[in-house]
Amino acid sequence: MNYKTQMEAARKGIVTDAMKYVSKIEDISIDTLMCKMAEGKIIIPANRNHISLIPGAVGEGLKTKVNVNLGISRDCPSITKEMQKVELSLKYKADSIMDLSCFGDTKPFRKLLLEKSNIMIGSVPMYDATGLHEKELKDLTKDDFLSVARQHAEDGVDFLTIHVGLNKKTAERIKNNKRLTSIVSRGGSLLFAWMEMTGNENPYYEYYDELLEICREHDVTLSLGDGCRPGSIADATDAIQIEELITLGELTKRAWEKDVQVMIEGPGHVPLNEIETNIQLQKKLCYGAPFYVLGPLVTDIAPGYDHITSAIGGAVAAGAGADFLCYVTPAEHLKLPELDDIKEGIIACQIAAHAGDIAKGLKGATDRDNAISKARAELDWEQMFDISIDPEKARKYRAESQPAEEKSCSMCGDMCAIKNMNTIMSGEKVILAR
Amino acid sequence: MNYKTQMEAARKGIVTDAMKYVSKIEDISIDTLMCKMAEGKIIIPANRNHISLIPGAVGEGLKTKVNVNLGISRDCPSITKEMQKVELSLKYKADSIMDLSCFGDTKPFRKLLLEKSNIMIGSVPMYDATGLHEKELKDLTKDDFLSVARQHAEDGVDFLTIHVGLNKKTAERIKNNKRLTSIVSRGGSLLFAWMEMTGNENPYYEYYDELLEICREHDVTLSLGDGCRPGSIADATDAIQIEELITLGELTKRAWEKDVQVMIEGPGHVPLNEIETNIQLQKKLCYGAPFYVLGPLVTDIAPGYDHITSAIGGAVAAGAGADFLCYVTPAEHLKLPELDDIKEGIIACQIAAHAGDIAKGLKGATDRDNAISKARAELDWEQMFDISIDPEKARKYRAESQPAEEKSCSMCGDMCAIKNMNTIMSGEKVILAR
Repeated sequence: MNYKTQMEAARKGIVTDAMKYVSKIEDISIDTLMCKMAEGKIIIPANRNHISLIPGAVGEGLKTKVNVNLGISRDCPSITKEMQKVELSLKYKADSIMDLSCFGDTKPFRKLLLEKSNIMIGSVPMYDATGLHEKELKDLTKDDFLSVARQHAEDGVDFLTIHVGLNKKTAERIKNNKRLTSIVSRGGSLLFAWMEMTGNENPYYEYYDELLEICREHDVTLSLGDGCRPGSIADATDAIQIEELITLGELTKRAWEKDVQVMIEGPGHVPLNEIETNIQLQKKLCYGAPFYVLGPLVTDIAPGYDHITSAIGGAVAAGAGADFLCYVTPAEHLKLPELDDIKEGIIACQIAAHAGDIAKGLKGATDRDNAISKARAELDWEQMFDISIDPEKARKYRAESQPAEEKSCSMCGDMCAIKNMNTIMSGEKVILAR
Repeated sequence: MNYKTQMEAARKGIVTDAMKYVSKIEDISIDTLMCKMAEGKIIIPANRNHISLIPGAVGEGLKTKVNVNLGISRDCPSITKEMQKVELSLKYKADSIMDLSCFGDTKPFRKLLLEKSNIMIGSVPMYDATGLHEKELKDLTKDDFLSVARQHAEDGVDFLTIHVGLNKKTAERIKNNKRLTSIVSRGGSLLFAWMEMTGNENPYYEYYDELLEICREHDVTLSLGDGCRPGSIADATDAIQIEELITLGELTKRAWEKDVQVMIEGPGHVPLNEIETNIQLQKKLCYGAPFYVLGPLVTDIAPGYDHITSAIGGAVAAGAGADFLCYVTPAEHLKLPELDDIKEGIIACQIAAHAGDIAKGLKGATDRDNAISKARAELDWEQMFDISIDPEKARKYRAESQPAEEKSCSMCGDMCAIKNMNTIMSGEKVILAR
């Protein structure tokens, strides 16, 4: 093959099978797609070693994507349980899964995941570094950091989240600018701790070129992690966050020089009125690279309901141009999510992504809305259920409460506006039960 | 007493007890409050006959309020069950309850509700007209329509939703502008049907002055209903909706001439990118009268999750200046909500209202966020639970999954960023379990 990455192919004018597929499902011309991929505005994270993958794309002008987090951990080491979460993610049509495994030997799970999952897989090598090398955090070497990234790349992971931007300069800002919730990024805090304990520069930053070589070799997309994302709305859009974002922009350019695909990870907790600013800043400072936001959560007060606080922020972010939303479940801030939490998280996130797609005027985004509303206007319940985001739940709700007036629902009964408008518009009389 | 309504008192410079109370709880000076009440930008819906009421206010510069719908119906006629919903609404701190009772003799429930509820009560007399008068819809007379409103006013209802704007001119627009989902307002569709069946003008529009007299007499606030609210995002911000809104603006002025307090009911289903326009239009066309929105739902595809689709829209609406949000439960479009649905609906709506208050810069809106984030940064779980929107649920979630690392949660275990940042910042080493 005369290209290493999808970006290189696009730049060389080579049409890959992945591009053909994406062009079809996203209803975008090959020319536009390649042009935007060459510029870095669209990515196709598709590791050559992820054999089962059906390629997907992320970026400007495309459908907003939804990511699910899962993975084995000390508190939940069961591969079987995590694979149930994978099945659920596929059933509810997530666009990607991030394997956040962070304890013991993570390889068997990662291998199985990559085998069974035809959607994009991401991971955070930092979580796996102490486990893979069986070392204390402080004893990890530069080579250890790079080799865990290489391992994941060789295994077939499509995108790697690396907190490259949390370098010494950013760390300085952390010390000079007081925050309410300091660093809340797991990977970011571990790298920060390592830097503090060893006195060294962030190894991924210092040896970024070597990291890029690994990514280039396997066509792994870099998800430039926001180690300094705000963990409270008070910390949003502050000096620390923006300092890191500027660095991520510079690192984006360097990746593109080697044809490595990039997306940028974003906040976090952000008040509603600052979301648009955050998207605009990211798009400017990172030259239009796709933006992958974690929420954002628009308030800190709702543990147990953060699928909702993040659906609000995610919808507004997507509408303003964010390309990829990481789901948040009701368990966020409290515990690892169970299957029910994961389902709730995926659906809330899909609602947000869809609302954002409508807002940004994505071609065809309202087709499904119009179809379900047509069914609603005709009181065609089965058709409405078929089109709805969760037919099972909608059917269950209706079945639980069959109204006396069969065509309508128990909410309005025979005062159903739709039924009565249909009656009066067809010239008949509206008669209410008494 | 030398005033009839709170608005008249404000205009005459009379400081009422209700104003004193509102001034305190909303942290607004009496002068500002009275000035905005005189202009119609703030209302205190407080029927003289609602003895148990602790007054609340709605409008510019105040905390966004949350309304709960309930009421007896043909499919759910049990007063006991509806009273459980009332208790739940009070427990979860709703700001008002709308009694949408629509079948049989509604008076006993209304009486009990007004006795037990110290928050604002609203109702829709139109729902009760055929029941009260034991007549067919088509046989109702002008006097019947007015007397049902009078009955509710005398009983002590604080605000009445009346679809006054759906007059013959608006009806003409309905026939000339095709919609996907026609009229979806229960009250609106009944009035429209009555107008079609009798050939008469909307009686509330034709005899608006008489309606105003009733409201003035008991200091009932008029909630000018949006009979033509869009029931699908395709119908949002269309000619029919805006025609009615213009009329509601004119009717607002007429109410203010008689010192009758007014708020305007709003959509409905609205795409995210049209919400701000809707708020701006309402505020302009209705001269700054408080805006009471029903959602808005930002997509039509999610029956079973419309507490989320409406929380997204509600947050954005509140941030843009909407003053009052009507909750939507997961049961919307499917059935009457059960207790669990009502709880979900209230909390989702409160999240939206709070996110909006933060966005519009309401004084003190972030205090609670900052307090919970401080507790989070200190890993003070009990404090965090106490401040959170639903301490019960948050506690339950954490209890279900006690992590090996006691201070953190099972989500990150000993990779908890907060724990590790606290450790490293205090000069100690971060050591991970292996």
